[in-house]
Amino acid sequence: MASRILVVHGPNLNLLGEREPEIYGRATLADYVTHARAIAAPLGMDIEDHQSNHEGELIDLIHNARGRTAGIIINPGAFTHSSWAIHDALAAYEGHVIEVHISNPDAREPWRRTSVVAPVATGSISGLGIHGYEMAVRAMARLLGLTE
Amino acid sequence: MASRILVVHGPNLNLLGEREPEIYGRATLADYVTHARAIAAPLGMDIEDHQSNHEGELIDLIHNARGRTAGIIINPGAFTHSSWAIHDALAAYEGHVIEVHISNPDAREPWRRTSVVAPVATGSISGLGIHGYEMAVRAMARLLGLTE
Amino acid sequence: MASRILVVHGPNLNLLGEREPEIYGRATLADYVTHARAIAAPLGMDIEDHQSNHEGELIDLIHNARGRTAGIIINPGAFTHSSWAIHDALAAYEGHVIEVHISNPDAREPWRRTSVVAPVATGSISGLGIHGYEMAVRAMARLLGLTE
Amino acid sequence: MASRILVVHGPNLNLLGEREPEIYGRATLADYVTHARAIAAPLGMDIEDHQSNHEGELIDLIHNARGRTAGIIINPGAFTHSSWAIHDALAAYEGHVIEVHISNPDAREPWRRTSVVAPVATGSISGLGIHGYEMAVRAMARLLGLTE
Amino acid sequence: MASRILVVHGPNLNLLGEREPEIYGRATLADYVTHARAIAAPLGMDIEDHQSNHEGELIDLIHNARGRTAGIIINPGAFTHSSWAIHDALAAYEGHVIEVHISNPDAREPWRRTSVVAPVATGSISGLGIHGYEMAVRAMARLLGLTE
Amino acid sequence: MASRILVVHGPNLNLLGEREPEIYGRATLADYVTHARAIAAPLGMDIEDHQSNHEGELIDLIHNARGRTAGIIINPGAFTHSSWAIHDALAAYEGHVIEVHISNPDAREPWRRTSVVAPVATGSISGLGIHGYEMAVRAMARLLGLTE
Amino acid sequence: MASRILVVHGPNLNLLGEREPEIYGRATLADYVTHARAIAAPLGMDIEDHQSNHEGELIDLIHNARGRTAGIIINPGAFTHSSWAIHDALAAYEGHVIEVHISNPDAREPWRRTSVVAPVATGSISGLGIHGYEMAVRAMARLLGLTE
Amino acid sequence: MASRILVVHGPNLNLLGEREPEIYGRATLADYVTHARAIAAPLGMDIEDHQSNHEGELIDLIHNARGRTAGIIINPGAFTHSSWAIHDALAAYEGHVIEVHISNPDAREPWRRTSVVAPVATGSISGLGIHGYEMAVRAMARLLGLTE
Amino acid sequence: MASRILVVHGPNLNLLGEREPEIYGRATLADYVTHARAIAAPLGMDIEDHQSNHEGELIDLIHNARGRTAGIIINPGAFTHSSWAIHDALAAYEGHVIEVHISNPDAREPWRRTSVVAPVATGSISGLGIHGYEMAVRAMARLLGLTE
Amino acid sequence: MASRILVVHGPNLNLLGEREPEIYGRATLADYVTHARAIAAPLGMDIEDHQSNHEGELIDLIHNARGRTAGIIINPGAFTHSSWAIHDALAAYEGHVIEVHISNPDAREPWRRTSVVAPVATGSISGLGIHGYEMAVRAMARLLGLTE
Amino acid sequence: MASRILVVHGPNLNLLGEREPEIYGRATLADYVTHARAIAAPLGMDIEDHQSNHEGELIDLIHNARGRTAGIIINPGAFTHSSWAIHDALAAYEGHVIEVHISNPDAREPWRRTSVVAPVATGSISGLGIHGYEMAVRAMARLLGLTE
Amino acid sequence: MASRILVVHGPNLNLLGEREPEIYGRATLADYVTHARAIAAPLGMDIEDHQSNHEGELIDLIHNARGRTAGIIINPGAFTHSSWAIHDALAAYEGHVIEVHISNPDAREPWRRTSVVAPVATGSISGLGIHGYEMAVRAMARLLGLTE
Repeated sequence: MASRILVVHGPNLNLLGEREPEIYGRATLADYVTHARAIAAPLGMDIEDHQSNHEGELIDLIHNARGRTAGIIINPGAFTHSSWAIHDALAAYEGHVIEVHISNPDAREPWRRTSVVAPVATGSISGLGIHGYEMAVRAMARLLGLTE
Repeated sequence: MASRILVVHGPNLNLLGEREPEIYGRATLADYVTHARAIAAPLGMDIEDHQSNHEGELIDLIHNARGRTAGIIINPGAFTHSSWAIHDALAAYEGHVIEVHISNPDAREPWRRTSVVAPVATGSISGLGIHGYEMAVRAMARLLGLTE
Repeated sequence: MASRILVVHGPNLNLLGEREPEIYGRATLADYVTHARAIAAPLGMDIEDHQSNHEGELIDLIHNARGRTAGIIINPGAFTHSSWAIHDALAAYEGHVIEVHISNPDAREPWRRTSVVAPVATGSISGLGIHGYEMAVRAMARLLGLTE
Repeated sequence: MASRILVVHGPNLNLLGEREPEIYGRATLADYVTHARAIAAPLGMDIEDHQSNHEGELIDLIHNARGRTAGIIINPGAFTHSSWAIHDALAAYEGHVIEVHISNPDAREPWRRTSVVAPVATGSISGLGIHGYEMAVRAMARLLGLTE
Repeated sequence: MASRILVVHGPNLNLLGEREPEIYGRATLADYVTHARAIAAPLGMDIEDHQSNHEGELIDLIHNARGRTAGIIINPGAFTHSSWAIHDALAAYEGHVIEVHISNPDAREPWRRTSVVAPVATGSISGLGIHGYEMAVRAMARLLGLTE
Repeated sequence: MASRILVVHGPNLNLLGEREPEIYGRATLADYVTHARAIAAPLGMDIEDHQSNHEGELIDLIHNARGRTAGIIINPGAFTHSSWAIHDALAAYEGHVIEVHISNPDAREPWRRTSVVAPVATGSISGLGIHGYEMAVRAMARLLGLTE
Repeated sequence: MASRILVVHGPNLNLLGEREPEIYGRATLADYVTHARAIAAPLGMDIEDHQSNHEGELIDLIHNARGRTAGIIINPGAFTHSSWAIHDALAAYEGHVIEVHISNPDAREPWRRTSVVAPVATGSISGLGIHGYEMAVRAMARLLGLTE
Repeated sequence: MASRILVVHGPNLNLLGEREPEIYGRATLADYVTHARAIAAPLGMDIEDHQSNHEGELIDLIHNARGRTAGIIINPGAFTHSSWAIHDALAAYEGHVIEVHISNPDAREPWRRTSVVAPVATGSISGLGIHGYEMAVRAMARLLGLTE
Repeated sequence: MASRILVVHGPNLNLLGEREPEIYGRATLADYVTHARAIAAPLGMDIEDHQSNHEGELIDLIHNARGRTAGIIINPGAFTHSSWAIHDALAAYEGHVIEVHISNPDAREPWRRTSVVAPVATGSISGLGIHGYEMAVRAMARLLGLTE
Repeated sequence: MASRILVVHGPNLNLLGEREPEIYGRATLADYVTHARAIAAPLGMDIEDHQSNHEGELIDLIHNARGRTAGIIINPGAFTHSSWAIHDALAAYEGHVIEVHISNPDAREPWRRTSVVAPVATGSISGLGIHGYEMAVRAMARLLGLTE
Repeated sequence: MASRILVVHGPNLNLLGEREPEIYGRATLADYVTHARAIAAPLGMDIEDHQSNHEGELIDLIHNARGRTAGIIINPGAFTHSSWAIHDALAAYEGHVIEVHISNPDAREPWRRTSVVAPVATGSISGLGIHGYEMAVRAMARLLGLTE
Repeated sequence: MASRILVVHGPNLNLLGEREPEIYGRATLADYVTHARAIAAPLGMDIEDHQSNHEGELIDLIHNARGRTAGIIINPGAFTHSSWAIHDALAAYEGHVIEVHISNPDAREPWRRTSVVAPVATGSISGLGIHGYEMAVRAMARLLGLTE
């Protein structure tokens, strides 16, 4: 049976493809998810995806993933830089967590350079656009010992 | 013809497998390079690898990669946090740069949380151990438009 | 046809008229909106107003205003000082944004002196109480080239 | 007639008993509330309890308590350290506010050492586990002049 | 009889229309004053205007306005960020003070984000170009209880 | 046999009832101790109390409590904010430590917001006036497993 | 022959007696100077006094005092906190310099707690109102070895 | 009957005349006190003097002065920069407090530039050596309305 | 026809040769100007020189140089470290600006290490005494394409 | 005749051997002193030792050592990080001062990394446990030119 | 005989003319050296030039220049901002040192605004491109008293 | 067989005896090593010494000492304050590390007060000149359990 992976997108990521395309590219959120699913399936993983602009919903989603999913791939959007509540929710999650950013936060405004989520993630990937999601999915498979 | 990729390892990474295995694991640097090569070959990339504890040599290596390689994958070790000279060398490099860290610097000492190299990298990957190198190689292939 | 303007009020502004009247005055939120509408109508603007204590709802409201409103007048309340997510939502909005504060944040606690929203606003108005909303509405009309 | 007291639990406290038991112990949120109720009843207080991972809901709850409750006992979880919006909501509340933390935030990560809620609380209690809630309930009774 | 309002422009504002027009626009200082006067007259206000590059002259002007004017509209230019002496002069002024900035200081260099004048102003308006002066004049009328 | 508890009061607390009664109330130190004793006795605890304006004496008292008392309730007064020596003395104490403050330090001057003692206390209670001592005594009983 | 002493008053001190009398009292600048002269004369000192709101004029006055006065008593007003140019002018003065403040800057806003002038003054006196000037005059006499 | 004034000297001031005479001069503590007494007597003040290297003793002395002295002249030595306990003791004193420093702390090491005592003093005098004590005594007489 | 160059000297530079000669040397301002003129003439440049202790005059001089001079050589004295108004005036100047300092600010007090003027200068020269002016004049000639 | 050396131990060092033995080891203070004496005697030094938890007593001890001892070896315990008064006392001591720490403060909490005593010590030794005292004694002998 | 001058170029300066030409221009390092030599020769100076990307080699070069060269002109590249080791090497050099930067570091990233080398240089020149080297050579000649 | 100890000297220490003798004394590096050897031999230790100005060489030396030496005595010179790479190399070394400084860094410039090497050293010794090396050698013997 396929391992279930939660892919969570934080605030403003529903605008992917429309918002500041010179930074975020023209692929839509649907494109991202379709792409991640295509990578995940042959690796034996089943992706459950959600996007929310509400910090509380993201926390609920993470709680809900406990005991029923094998890993979380999260792009916390702007909550990356301030949400200790998401930090605490992820700290209480027993599986692997991979943080993904589409653009490279270190090459942008200073306030984007701090992640309060990173300390509770297994690893993080940034700046690789849609390829970052592929890499997160593949890395998750490796961490879970799955083989194609 | 295969695309040439420079893989550079900074200070103390020659001790991989021996040094603090609870943080860095038991794979040696040779294991890392062998693994990266195995991933790279079918993707049409040829890896040139170097390790040095000398900041100046790392800069020379980056300069030397100009005009003759398609990308750089770099783990700058402790120079990550202070070497503006490596920053400047990478800024002068015309290809893609992917920064890799074996452990998750954000989950360790505070001084490991700042990368002066990241602002001039296309992207970065951390905390995924030896899988991080696989992902860096695959991501480089994607950035270069290579297909298996 | 009248230009549609979104007027958004952030957390605790539903208590206007009740909460700390020595700072915020005795006019209620309804009074504010009625007043803004009375100014807007003869200037050819139609006001759509919302208040929410939920950061996520404010983001949704801003997203929803895309492509269908001519401008946003926003009083982000205490989110002014920390919500990079609202910052990102406004950055993705194509029209003019005017930030309004009823009291003068610079004359209060130090933490009220920083606005993370201001960098993505066209302009901001503070300390003028209910008159600040009149001025925001009039300024929006000027920015949109409307004439009475 | 019993005085009504609002007991509010912030993000991740629904996981009490499951999450990091070495820090938070094995009692569940239901245990906490039952315990608080048992202490409150003979002191003439009636407890209304809520938990939410949504900052906006916490604000709504605090607003809703205005004019109908005699005091608030709040454990704001990770919102303790960043939510000026909850600060403003509590500042607009006319009764006593007691802040409670299960663990001792001063003995943990540096970012847990700052409370933006404390300046608008009458008092605060931390590090005493489930006993902290008993003490908060008893202290509230004292502040309200209630006698067993 | 018309209420007298002092409009003061600080350093470099004599270059309006010539200096960095991509930031400050092409209207000259004379245009600004003419525009403000046109708004003020029907509202029953008489504008007295001055520009100076000398901090001392600005202080003298503010002192001189005591007891003889009903309000001050001030654009302190670069003195906004450092002149505690102007702060003290305005603090000693008994009428309303409105601070105006043509561009949005929060969207520019970090040092432009701090105003030492704001704490002693009734309110402030920024980023609205020449319209900001109209709004300042109108707001002053409101604060003075004048009606068209 | 009753458990012995050391209650220690730091500098200036001998002035309780006389000093700034709008902050500290009108109860004297003797009132505080009498009140604490009245709560402690039925809970099976015997209170030994001391007040000193001398940091060294406070350290000596803490040392002297080693091996012969079951817990310490300490109000370190202004030493709260600077005495690493009291921190070290408490760290060397084997029993429970509860830190108490009569007023709410977080609602006062910034320098009162840092406690160097808190990291070595089991818990802390502040802002509850004389009730805070009752709560500290009761909490100590709970930590010691005493029942009325 | 009497020793000549320059007494310099900085910005806003011309408003003494009118401005914020709860802080600065009701004595006017003329009262201050008359008082200082009355103290100085029997001690064999002749006071030359100036007030200016212009930093440049204050610098010119200090330069002009070189070689022809025995000491300077200066109240730099708000320039105290920022004028390195006055600092440099006083550093180039060969006689004694006494800095005087009417109110106690340490009991007011944080920015008033730093004096850039103090490092080049022989001494400073603050918080003593008009008596501070008497004390400055008497202290200057002592430094100059004058006897009544 | 003469007004009683407490003159308190903090740590290391017993070494006056011996310690770093290039900074502190060659007059001994006895000389200082004799000089202060000589000034005080004809002004109708009686000086009670103490020196201690113990922070606790200084606090006891200040407490003991309550209700029985008309003012305190204090040179807190190195405690100036850190003793919030002395700050609190002086805050609880009902009379005038004048802080004196022999040398000019602003012209020495950075850590000498902050006084935690100053905010609770009426005024302060520094850098004037033994004359500073004369001026403190005279200023105290003025504050007490005494005349020679 | 010779290119006109404005040479501006800021506060206290009128004291050159008299003030702190161990830092600034014994050459007077007149010597400096004569020397600069002697270098400039054969290079085809005509020097207009001004010194002022008034920030406002320096701004007026810079404004006045617009459209009629080919470059500005400025030694802003102590205004270097704080005058954003001079910064703005130079930013509005269309020609080249060279900042000169006689001594080496980086080898002196910390506050001399920051120049707010430097970001709007083409280049800067410091620590070379009177030779610095020669070099500034020669460099200006090079920037203007003048040849001897 | 033997040179007299003062060995001073600060707060909490009386607990050596009992307190946190995993950090400080199991040797008692008496062991430390006996060991130091055994090293000192053949080198011609006579050790006078004191321990105190009172900052004031430590200052008195240092004063008392003036003129009658050849050197001081001091372990200031937690006063290391805050006592400018001990700093001043040591600065007034004419002989050599060696600071000793049993553990390595740089490998512990951040606040232990700053020594306010170090700037007035000849040298310091840390992290070497009881051997550190031997080394301090031997180094003192070398500084005093003593030979075994 | 010509005075020997060491001209040292730090990391990445070997890329001059190729790297970021919009910042550094199109002249190569060879062009720079040829130009400096052409200026130096008629002034009686003989230039020895070196470039290295190795901090250690730069230190060796500076050491090697001791006792055999009359001055050093150094562009430390990115080591400017961090190399205290180069700082120490230059501090041990007995001749004049002039620091040169091609671009204006104050107009670039914040981290380029601090030079740890400047405090041990006689002077520095920046922002003048290749002319900066001419000026450094000419200034060195002046400092050495050489005449054309 | 003698225990092998690596003694490493960092940048600029090859200049000992020549460079700033008022700080570092007149003994040369050879004198230091000879002295250390003379102390080490009778204690059963054999010293291998190296000096390098190259950070990379120092790292190589530390790596090379792994598994073949019993301890490292290191004076990292200016790399003390910035080299996290040397920190990491020492962290990977299994034996004891003693850090030595000839002068007292705490009595010099602020940047010399931070050691990034200290957290991974067993202990450190500073300010004792050539005696510091003797003490480091003796302490190493003690840590290794060697007896004369």
